Amino acid sequence: MKALVLEKTGDIKDLKENLVFRDFDTPVPKEGEVLIKVQYAALNHRDVWITKGLYSGVRTPIILGSDCAGTIADSNGSSFKNGDAVIVNPTINWGVNQSHQNKNFSILGLPENGTLAEYICIPSKYVYLKPEHLSFKEASAFPLAGLTAYRACFVRGKITAGDNVLITGVGGGVATFAMVYCIAAGANVFVTSGDEDKLEQAITFGAVGGINHRIENWEKRFKEIHPKINKIIDGAGGGTFAKCLDICSEGGTLINYGATLGAVKNFEMRRVFWKQLNIYGSTMGSDEDFANMIEFIDAKKVKPVLDSEYEIQNGAEAFVRLESSKQMGKIIVRV
Amino acid sequence: MKALVLEKTGDIKDLKENLVFRDFDTPVPKEGEVLIKVQYAALNHRDVWITKGLYSGVRTPIILGSDCAGTIADSNGSSFKNGDAVIVNPTINWGVNQSHQNKNFSILGLPENGTLAEYICIPSKYVYLKPEHLSFKEASAFPLAGLTAYRACFVRGKITAGDNVLITGVGGGVATFAMVYCIAAGANVFVTSGDEDKLEQAITFGAVGGINHRIENWEKRFKEIHPKINKIIDGAGGGTFAKCLDICSEGGTLINYGATLGAVKNFEMRRVFWKQLNIYGSTMGSDEDFANMIEFIDAKKVKPVLDSEYEIQNGAEAFVRLESSKQMGKIIVRV
Repeated sequence: MKALVLEKTGDIKDLKENLVFRDFDTPVPKEGEVLIKVQYAALNHRDVWITKGLYSGVRTPIILGSDCAGTIADSNGSSFKNGDAVIVNPTINWGVNQSHQNKNFSILGLPENGTLAEYICIPSKYVYLKPEHLSFKEASAFPLAGLTAYRACFVRGKITAGDNVLITGVGGGVATFAMVYCIAAGANVFVTSGDEDKLEQAITFGAVGGINHRIENWEKRFKEIHPKINKIIDGAGGGTFAKCLDICSEGGTLINYGATLGAVKNFEMRRVFWKQLNIYGSTMGSDEDFANMIEFIDAKKVKPVLDSEYEIQNGAEAFVRLESSKQMGKIIVRV
Repeated sequence: MKALVLEKTGDIKDLKENLVFRDFDTPVPKEGEVLIKVQYAALNHRDVWITKGLYSGVRTPIILGSDCAGTIADSNGSSFKNGDAVIVNPTINWGVNQSHQNKNFSILGLPENGTLAEYICIPSKYVYLKPEHLSFKEASAFPLAGLTAYRACFVRGKITAGDNVLITGVGGGVATFAMVYCIAAGANVFVTSGDEDKLEQAITFGAVGGINHRIENWEKRFKEIHPKINKIIDGAGGGTFAKCLDICSEGGTLINYGATLGAVKNFEMRRVFWKQLNIYGSTMGSDEDFANMIEFIDAKKVKPVLDSEYEIQNGAEAFVRLESSKQMGKIIVRV
């Protein structure tokens, strides 16, 4: 088969040399696995970090990619039929606790070969029928970011109709799924971005409003206009999370799923205890979360926000697009 | 009546001049209030901060004190009988939300006159019959710190038998109540202190173990020995809370009720999301929390840890003892 193979890690400017579209042994399903012919894959920031060597346990050569939609090419005795349209849960070995992943947990696409290839083998327990309202292209956008957003919003944040939700950094994969999920759930959704175009686009998708986080003291201005934000979903950490502690109303809830801005340098604990805040960390999701996400997507006919599409042989360009942070929604790779 | 009256705020070394035991108008109960003859009162750090002017809305002259036990001197048409032995909930105007106090919330002892006096008037809805297994002296220790600990442990932290709980800064009022409550609830309790004597005393009260937080990298040493801490109750914030994020096991819960060490200077958000931690802020407690606390104390026959007793005319010495942080448990004032 053909695959997009990371031969060695390095700077993003060298990615075209390091990420090679080439022949690779077609995997053969082991017991309990199925073989999937990938139609579309999608990228996550994790993939970019791995190309830079900024992830623990990086090995090369490796096929990256955690997201895909495709068809069953070899059902290998499972309950699937050859030709079934499917998507894949990229959370490997979550374990038995719903509260947290166990130590052996991993994510599809490292250490195991991922989805940026013509074929992939995966245990059938991680494979789900594609919701019928989604095309292969749309379905491929969901797995990693959609699951992370689902757990953050509903399992951890328990967001329901009527909640006033602020989502930071719209445009990013998880934040954008969180936006469409919260809107689908009937919440009043507000977003932040450093890009006015993304703020406008968010409103076309159903957000109530947004604010540009490049404005000085944006949090004070935002809080004056919207003093009743009771849920906040953040993947930035750092100074953004510090401001979120200020924005969140008494008894409110903050969910954090990432820290692209690093540690919080001045975390005002007095806000946390005096306002009786709830802060929940969240990452990825359990098998149960993935199944519930599929049910939710199906029931609400949720569609993803898609940014752009690249052919797999031009995959490096897709990585450069993701690195630029200009995207609104998911960057898709056609296989 | 006689009362301990704060005439003006200032440094703790001037407290003997600023805090005067003198005549004061005996209060007269308004509609809905009862008059209580105070037998014992107890101190909280809040009282010390007020004497220094480090609290918003300080006025003088004022009678400080949030805690007392005494007898009904004028039942004023309430369901109490004159002579009933009672304790008082110091949370005034919590409001209707169980999740957080409303904006008009205040604490007995500022802005209203408090318990360091022969008599106090208080709405009868804040008055509860003293549990019979407690003396007046013991009962007076509970109200503010006991309520804060109750909400932190059980309403916010949902601590139950089998939890492995770390409580920071044992010796302080809330931390020491948290210790005895968690032990009474069947949890395995560990404590920190900078004082070896307090660590030893904690074990005599039923704690499993403790560690001196003056040891360099105490959190690493503690975590090596006790890797399964799933609940942490902290009132320090600052660097202590940062270490607690490290100590807490995956899926675990941290409850913070104060920040004597101030903001957290390097709050590692990646620990929060990757370990799927839960962080709950907590302060004081609702009327419902107070009623549930009384029920819990009664059912488990909980006794407070008492540090020392002072006569009200020597009240300033009690404040100096509290300021020294040498106490293990509550400092009581006999009226």
